[in-house]
Amino acid sequence: MQRRIRVGVVGGTGYTGVELLRLLAQHPAVEVATITSRKDAGTRVADMFPSLRGRVDLAFATPDEAPLAKCDVVFFATPHGVAMSQARELLAAGVRVIDLAADFRLKDPAEFERWYKMPHACPDLLAEAVYGLPEVNRAAIAKARLIGLPGCYPTSVQLGLLPLLELERRRPGAIDTDSIIADCKSGASGAGRKAELHLLLAEASDNFKAYNVSGHRHHPETAQQLAELAGKPVGLTFVPHLVPMVRGILSTLYVRMKAAAKEDVQALFEARYRDEPFVDVMPFGSHPETRSVRASNQVRIALHRPGGGDLLIVLVVEDNLVKGASGQAVQVMNIMFGCPETDGLQQVPILP
Amino acid sequence: MQRRIRVGVVGGTGYTGVELLRLLAQHPAVEVATITSRKDAGTRVADMFPSLRGRVDLAFATPDEAPLAKCDVVFFATPHGVAMSQARELLAAGVRVIDLAADFRLKDPAEFERWYKMPHACPDLLAEAVYGLPEVNRAAIAKARLIGLPGCYPTSVQLGLLPLLELERRRPGAIDTDSIIADCKSGASGAGRKAELHLLLAEASDNFKAYNVSGHRHHPETAQQLAELAGKPVGLTFVPHLVPMVRGILSTLYVRMKAAAKEDVQALFEARYRDEPFVDVMPFGSHPETRSVRASNQVRIALHRPGGGDLLIVLVVEDNLVKGASGQAVQVMNIMFGCPETDGLQQVPILP
Amino acid sequence: MQRRIRVGVVGGTGYTGVELLRLLAQHPAVEVATITSRKDAGTRVADMFPSLRGRVDLAFATPDEAPLAKCDVVFFATPHGVAMSQARELLAAGVRVIDLAADFRLKDPAEFERWYKMPHACPDLLAEAVYGLPEVNRAAIAKARLIGLPGCYPTSVQLGLLPLLELERRRPGAIDTDSIIADCKSGASGAGRKAELHLLLAEASDNFKAYNVSGHRHHPETAQQLAELAGKPVGLTFVPHLVPMVRGILSTLYVRMKAAAKEDVQALFEARYRDEPFVDVMPFGSHPETRSVRASNQVRIALHRPGGGDLLIVLVVEDNLVKGASGQAVQVMNIMFGCPETDGLQQVPILP
Amino acid sequence: MQRRIRVGVVGGTGYTGVELLRLLAQHPAVEVATITSRKDAGTRVADMFPSLRGRVDLAFATPDEAPLAKCDVVFFATPHGVAMSQARELLAAGVRVIDLAADFRLKDPAEFERWYKMPHACPDLLAEAVYGLPEVNRAAIAKARLIGLPGCYPTSVQLGLLPLLELERRRPGAIDTDSIIADCKSGASGAGRKAELHLLLAEASDNFKAYNVSGHRHHPETAQQLAELAGKPVGLTFVPHLVPMVRGILSTLYVRMKAAAKEDVQALFEARYRDEPFVDVMPFGSHPETRSVRASNQVRIALHRPGGGDLLIVLVVEDNLVKGASGQAVQVMNIMFGCPETDGLQQVPILP
Repeated sequence: MQRRIRVGVVGGTGYTGVELLRLLAQHPAVEVATITSRKDAGTRVADMFPSLRGRVDLAFATPDEAPLAKCDVVFFATPHGVAMSQARELLAAGVRVIDLAADFRLKDPAEFERWYKMPHACPDLLAEAVYGLPEVNRAAIAKARLIGLPGCYPTSVQLGLLPLLELERRRPGAIDTDSIIADCKSGASGAGRKAELHLLLAEASDNFKAYNVSGHRHHPETAQQLAELAGKPVGLTFVPHLVPMVRGILSTLYVRMKAAAKEDVQALFEARYRDEPFVDVMPFGSHPETRSVRASNQVRIALHRPGGGDLLIVLVVEDNLVKGASGQAVQVMNIMFGCPETDGLQQVPILP
Repeated sequence: MQRRIRVGVVGGTGYTGVELLRLLAQHPAVEVATITSRKDAGTRVADMFPSLRGRVDLAFATPDEAPLAKCDVVFFATPHGVAMSQARELLAAGVRVIDLAADFRLKDPAEFERWYKMPHACPDLLAEAVYGLPEVNRAAIAKARLIGLPGCYPTSVQLGLLPLLELERRRPGAIDTDSIIADCKSGASGAGRKAELHLLLAEASDNFKAYNVSGHRHHPETAQQLAELAGKPVGLTFVPHLVPMVRGILSTLYVRMKAAAKEDVQALFEARYRDEPFVDVMPFGSHPETRSVRASNQVRIALHRPGGGDLLIVLVVEDNLVKGASGQAVQVMNIMFGCPETDGLQQVPILP
Repeated sequence: MQRRIRVGVVGGTGYTGVELLRLLAQHPAVEVATITSRKDAGTRVADMFPSLRGRVDLAFATPDEAPLAKCDVVFFATPHGVAMSQARELLAAGVRVIDLAADFRLKDPAEFERWYKMPHACPDLLAEAVYGLPEVNRAAIAKARLIGLPGCYPTSVQLGLLPLLELERRRPGAIDTDSIIADCKSGASGAGRKAELHLLLAEASDNFKAYNVSGHRHHPETAQQLAELAGKPVGLTFVPHLVPMVRGILSTLYVRMKAAAKEDVQALFEARYRDEPFVDVMPFGSHPETRSVRASNQVRIALHRPGGGDLLIVLVVEDNLVKGASGQAVQVMNIMFGCPETDGLQQVPILP
Repeated sequence: MQRRIRVGVVGGTGYTGVELLRLLAQHPAVEVATITSRKDAGTRVADMFPSLRGRVDLAFATPDEAPLAKCDVVFFATPHGVAMSQARELLAAGVRVIDLAADFRLKDPAEFERWYKMPHACPDLLAEAVYGLPEVNRAAIAKARLIGLPGCYPTSVQLGLLPLLELERRRPGAIDTDSIIADCKSGASGAGRKAELHLLLAEASDNFKAYNVSGHRHHPETAQQLAELAGKPVGLTFVPHLVPMVRGILSTLYVRMKAAAKEDVQALFEARYRDEPFVDVMPFGSHPETRSVRASNQVRIALHRPGGGDLLIVLVVEDNLVKGASGQAVQVMNIMFGCPETDGLQQVPILP
């Protein structure tokens, strides 16, 4: 790789933005050319995030003055609705676009409108957009111009179910696809860097709760993708919970095995992920902890079958800001630009 | 109530012990006569727990020198196996016994032996022991000499399923009793005051994990009780998780409704708990938080039915040290001695 | 006490408000007649704070419709500036006023204006207002119509220095009053229930920092009071820090002893606080923890003199929302209305 | 650098051990040849620390079977007393030794014996040992065979005072060296990976306390070094506190300026640290947070002078496990072996 990849970041003041900057600052083949924030234009990045002092020497620019069109790739670490308003112009200028928000995740614009309460600005681009989950779409990502990056919860749920749904596709009747339960738990950074009462330390610390049990935006995204993997609709119940910690997601997945009661699911998972650099299948019966992947792009998965029955429990941990967002974004960029997939993503998890 | 109830506490150096002392210190009709600890005999209670300075004026005594036989009731806040070795003698002396550990929870001594790795010292007393869940066994508790107090997880799971299992008993086929899932989350105090590595702040803070997924001691207890409520075996999957907080349990229960798709489960729960002082059925679709019951004997329950489907989600919160242990013990004592059931248990939860 | 005290609470949606409600709900002689919130008028209190379900059966009223003038006492749990705009009218109606904010703490209106960036609405009332620290002003409080309640930090600093400054007054030259240092640490609830970025769990958890080192509003208040106690100006350096916990303040106070190198300061503190129900002087060399007073009105103090030198270290812990705010408010009310001073404040601290 | 540095780690099961492994796994010029643990010999490192799965492919060896004598350098991440029993033999074999514990910090064996309650095994080596603080001893480190690595607190205190004490040495009377106060706060990992009650999450979380106020082992070490820097004894009061977080130290230092009231201390600090890769002097009046250096070798310092008076406040943050231990060890190793000093230490701090 001769020339460095010129990167633009739109909306760098949130958690996925600062996490992108952390990862890109350590990437051997990247130059961050510009970073925008309408509200904080003029502020030096390292003044807002002192962790980046001495590592990121940029100030936030307004979207208008930022040379986004001269970048090789632009990441949108923005609220939902921003990327879709700027993607067409950037693509026309030959810039590749990776949206970390939801604008290009759902294939059906009506579904987008229903969950995000706004019309989709460019439904035609939805068809072109590639869902940026490397473990499923690596080849398509390599050729893509426009990426809708998976949400944090959906990444963990899909990676936990992927080998099973592919099995079901190959051998229908292997698992019960009507009654999958995803009981998911996330740290508070998953809600973003937003000044909301319920996210205050004094509210959320030393506390635990479920939220959005009757409907969460990551449900339609996950259901869409699971159906694609299984080749048929999948009945999914998704219950998110808020954990009093900063980073991390643990998804506890309940899947009923059918014909496959005899199936060696451990071997199935190990085979499926053998060559995946960021998916670690732990020994059967392990208990992965979120801190075992903290601040890294790693996912760890473990399987259980209590009492040897037909209910399979899949435990999946990820760092919601890395594999669940910015790390996955870098992984996708690496694929798009022909870099080694692990470039900039080799950090060892932080424990303790 | 003329005379005060003379109370003895065996094993007061753990979390259920200090919590008992906190509650009993505020009880209008109780005198704590003695408290024992073999290891810390001679130490003043308030030196070990400065929160009790000025409120508890006792020193730990050795079990031998403590006047337990002269108490009206003795609480065992001890590791498993202690109460069963002393219960017979105390009962013979006319003392009532409330065991906060597991010695008198399981009806089948073989089951006890299997899970607790020790023979049961008095299987004959098991038949007499009453399972101390007031919402189910109030009348029996009132007449009991010997109480096996429910575990923390089992309390939350039973209270969350009670109206449904009673419905099933009245009207078989109302719910699917073969595939109930209890995805439970507990604060670290649930593991007790034990110096173990995985419970250190530096290990358990800013972290989340499942544990004992392949088998937890609270499973046989819960299964036994659910079967009793339903009048038939119940298929229960129980997955505990460790939350980086001090107190609190949230249990997320998944129950598939059958004939009862039309059932008004909200009305069912409200009717069942209308007269229960410590069970609060919140409006349908609520999200109870553990802190809403922190340091109180309250349980709060909320129901959800995502998409209006046949899967009912029951959310239950309790403070594991109060309703899950010491508060329930005081409630049971109140019933046994004819005190108002809420005596000593009127504390408003601590929020924030 | 025949008739219950009719209490009004203005601004009940913050942490001092909900804490007042928690304490008043358990007070034997109080009836909360009304509670106001301009923004949340109409909302039931227990819907905003589920911890109060079944305990507080009121809805927030607008300040205009609330029968404040018919109360015996009105607490202002409001932002700075509200109490001073309504106090005159209430006093005229014979209502006593306890302000938990800063409107009536500083004696000098210019000082108020300098730190709070607003003119004082009723400088004449400042002269009448009594500073509500019972350990210093009990007699004046009993006769007061208008109370400016101490801030949370100032309460801990004053109680930690009180015996020393009184000693200095009696025997000038006992301590060095020019160079007192108060290195104070507070949980996040001290900042109030405000949606601000730096208070998010994802920002403030697993983190520690000093803040407002160059000037904090509690400095002039503390300096004013210390001067009053010492009978001369006191040089105070005050450095606040934010601890990743919900409740609690620990103040580490550094005082250089002069003539008093021989002084038995432990005896001095014990004698001074012997009859104070809420100040506990621990054995010399103890290490009080904030949790030892969690959710209670207790203050605990311990003294150290490393190497037996002339530097005295005073450690003070309090719960910032109880003795540092709402508990102190109830204590003051008890004094004003002739109730036993500990009424409604007998809760044992929550540990763990 | 042709050949990789062969590294041995003695005692790899504690926090400084696993942190060393994290850093060394990312070091371009290191090969970890062996790691020992008497207790856990045979266990794979990645089984004990799943964060290292796929990154560290070693099992713990017993000290006897480990080829320590064939290493270029051996790190002791052991309890106090281990390194001194093995150092002589390793040095004789031509191996360099870096002790992360206290065996080679104190110059005076009597002082060591007094604080660590054991005789020193090799007082003669003490004279040779170099105190491993690069910012002070870089040249000596480069030539050293044996390093006593600074403690976590002493590192932060020394770096915060270094420019001032050097000033005092150059210009006596600049600061008051008799009354320096170090009010220090540390996360729980500073206590090590030890199963002790007071470090449990349920004990230490949502809590704050001072500890060892009457005497802490880091006091003599710090005092010794400060005296060396100042060229005369320094009166230091050191008060450590336990913060409910995993990593991080903030030291609040109080120094009284004398002649130097006119001194531009900000310029002094900036000049002193201009070329130091791991010391960041922030703008005057800043408030460094521990998370701004989390999991990195960075130290950040900020100065305050409240009211423009003569009391200087120095705020210092470091990650106790990195610059306070294992990162500093790697930095020292880099200097000893002629590697670029930042090799393996370029990680950007983890925020949030």
